[in-house]
Amino acid sequence: MIIDCHGHYTTAPGELHVFRDAQLAALRDPRGVVVEAPRISDDQIRDSLEKAQIKLQRERGSDLTIFSPRASAMSHHLGNEAASLQWARVCNDLIYRACELYPDNFVGVCQLPQSPGVAPGRSAAELERCVRELGFIGCNLNPDPSGGYWTSPPLSDRQWYPLYQKMVELDVPAMVHVSSSCNPNFHGTGAHYLNADTTAFMQFLTSDLFKDFPTLRFIIPHGGGAVPYHWGRYRGLAQDMKRPPLEELMKNVYFDTCVYHLPGIELLFKVVPVENILFGSEMVGAVRGIDVRTGQHYDDTKRYVDALALSEADRRLVYSANTRRVFPRLDALLKKRGR
Amino acid sequence: MIIDCHGHYTTAPGELHVFRDAQLAALRDPRGVVVEAPRISDDQIRDSLEKAQIKLQRERGSDLTIFSPRASAMSHHLGNEAASLQWARVCNDLIYRACELYPDNFVGVCQLPQSPGVAPGRSAAELERCVRELGFIGCNLNPDPSGGYWTSPPLSDRQWYPLYQKMVELDVPAMVHVSSSCNPNFHGTGAHYLNADTTAFMQFLTSDLFKDFPTLRFIIPHGGGAVPYHWGRYRGLAQDMKRPPLEELMKNVYFDTCVYHLPGIELLFKVVPVENILFGSEMVGAVRGIDVRTGQHYDDTKRYVDALALSEADRRLVYSANTRRVFPRLDALLKKRGR
Repeated sequence: MIIDCHGHYTTAPGELHVFRDAQLAALRDPRGVVVEAPRISDDQIRDSLEKAQIKLQRERGSDLTIFSPRASAMSHHLGNEAASLQWARVCNDLIYRACELYPDNFVGVCQLPQSPGVAPGRSAAELERCVRELGFIGCNLNPDPSGGYWTSPPLSDRQWYPLYQKMVELDVPAMVHVSSSCNPNFHGTGAHYLNADTTAFMQFLTSDLFKDFPTLRFIIPHGGGAVPYHWGRYRGLAQDMKRPPLEELMKNVYFDTCVYHLPGIELLFKVVPVENILFGSEMVGAVRGIDVRTGQHYDDTKRYVDALALSEADRRLVYSANTRRVFPRLDALLKKRGR
Repeated sequence: MIIDCHGHYTTAPGELHVFRDAQLAALRDPRGVVVEAPRISDDQIRDSLEKAQIKLQRERGSDLTIFSPRASAMSHHLGNEAASLQWARVCNDLIYRACELYPDNFVGVCQLPQSPGVAPGRSAAELERCVRELGFIGCNLNPDPSGGYWTSPPLSDRQWYPLYQKMVELDVPAMVHVSSSCNPNFHGTGAHYLNADTTAFMQFLTSDLFKDFPTLRFIIPHGGGAVPYHWGRYRGLAQDMKRPPLEELMKNVYFDTCVYHLPGIELLFKVVPVENILFGSEMVGAVRGIDVRTGQHYDDTKRYVDALALSEADRRLVYSANTRRVFPRLDALLKKRGR
């Protein structure tokens, strides 16, 4: 069984974006308009998935995608807390419906209703709703709800602790995932995403967060940003700063395989313990084209993993066992279904 | 001959920092105190270099270091434009003296007197002074003088053009190098540096800067940040965005070898054209420890490069020819000296 730990609903019906635009426009309207949740039919959902994610699952040979709302559209920097909450609920409810329609193909991870300057703990209720009522197994946590100005405290700050307490209580991990950038310095998928990954790792390395929360787990996507390429730098920095060795940190931190070429994947597996690598493709996502050199999609990361000389045991770790360990609610769900 | 393109005067005598502290304190003093440049003797300079950079050059087998003021201490976010100018002049003058004392060991690259919100073109005069009067061969350009809040325009913005015009006129390249971070989200050497490298590359990729300045050249340090690890992502993004292929961009952009482990260096050489790689170590710099696994310094990057199966021609490119090509004033200087 092959589980893709990183998929977004980037192909959601246009009604969703019409709603978001109307919602944000209403915030600027002094009359205080209320915008209703969009009406999207089951057929629309089916159509949007079957010709995209499900088709690609079939073509590429993955079975189940851990599925969350489009990351770039979370745009926590827009609107206010109430708007973020309504938007998160609408997006999460849509993910729920996708998972209900295709329970073998998708399992849900939620968007949090974060907003700049708002205590992260206020996202705990939506997380709990998604996990307890909608059967979701984790969340995407935005380390920079300002969208590229980095005005929130680091992930190690105690302001985040109420949210972490809820994650621990529910036994769900978070993928550290920023949204789009409104800072003209940062291209979204080409800079902001990778920078956030790198930044989060260093925040973890320099803090005692996992002493306070020994069972808290984070997935750093996009292959860990710059981290594996600079693994020696991080080992050396940890040593110079008299921090524990990276092995200690890697009890709580995991990387996905969203690295879009073989040499990058080779490096990832060379330096990062295989127990910490979760298969992921980010499809349909950041890079959609076909590499003219190989004739294959850049984001068909399974090809790169398959090209490695991994033992069967290691392959099983990366394709399913690690992910089931990091997402215990997924493991329980699959066991219940006899998978 | 082995040229290290990336070395900072991180071991400057303490008087330099006493000066900087006094200078910044004076700015807060309503009496308007003038702080004089620090008095540092030739012997102090000799002592600070011979037991550090020069010793390491000898031990590791490099010949000449392209030498600039300590990057983390540039701290353009502190003080104001006048303070940045005085601080840059003091630091650059000290580099000049180091290069005069050890002309075989060092050649100068200058710190620019940038300040947040100040037009970058106002740094052109100090660049010109350093190149024409002090014999410097390039500059370090800070893409984020705010120190981690990224409030300046991207490097592709026309606000930077007057500085670029001066660089082109003088035929000197810039290393894109941030200073310390005052944003608690970003560890300096573990996040801010690498993020800036990644960010700059994507700014270049998405702009027509090099159409406007075909001979402008940038070195992106720290092995190009996250870029080589995500080379497939960048190739795919360029393709999706209908930008020219990366080969086109690499006529103006170069990476150094400040990657502190062999697998990272292997990846760099696997994906980036050898013509675009300049040997660098960043010593004495970000990571100073000895790797207990190898018994060698993390930042002894020459060991990693030497461990590669490079042809003699490629080795010469990386160790000297590329650097002489990117820094024509260095090439002229060395030719004049018969090297």
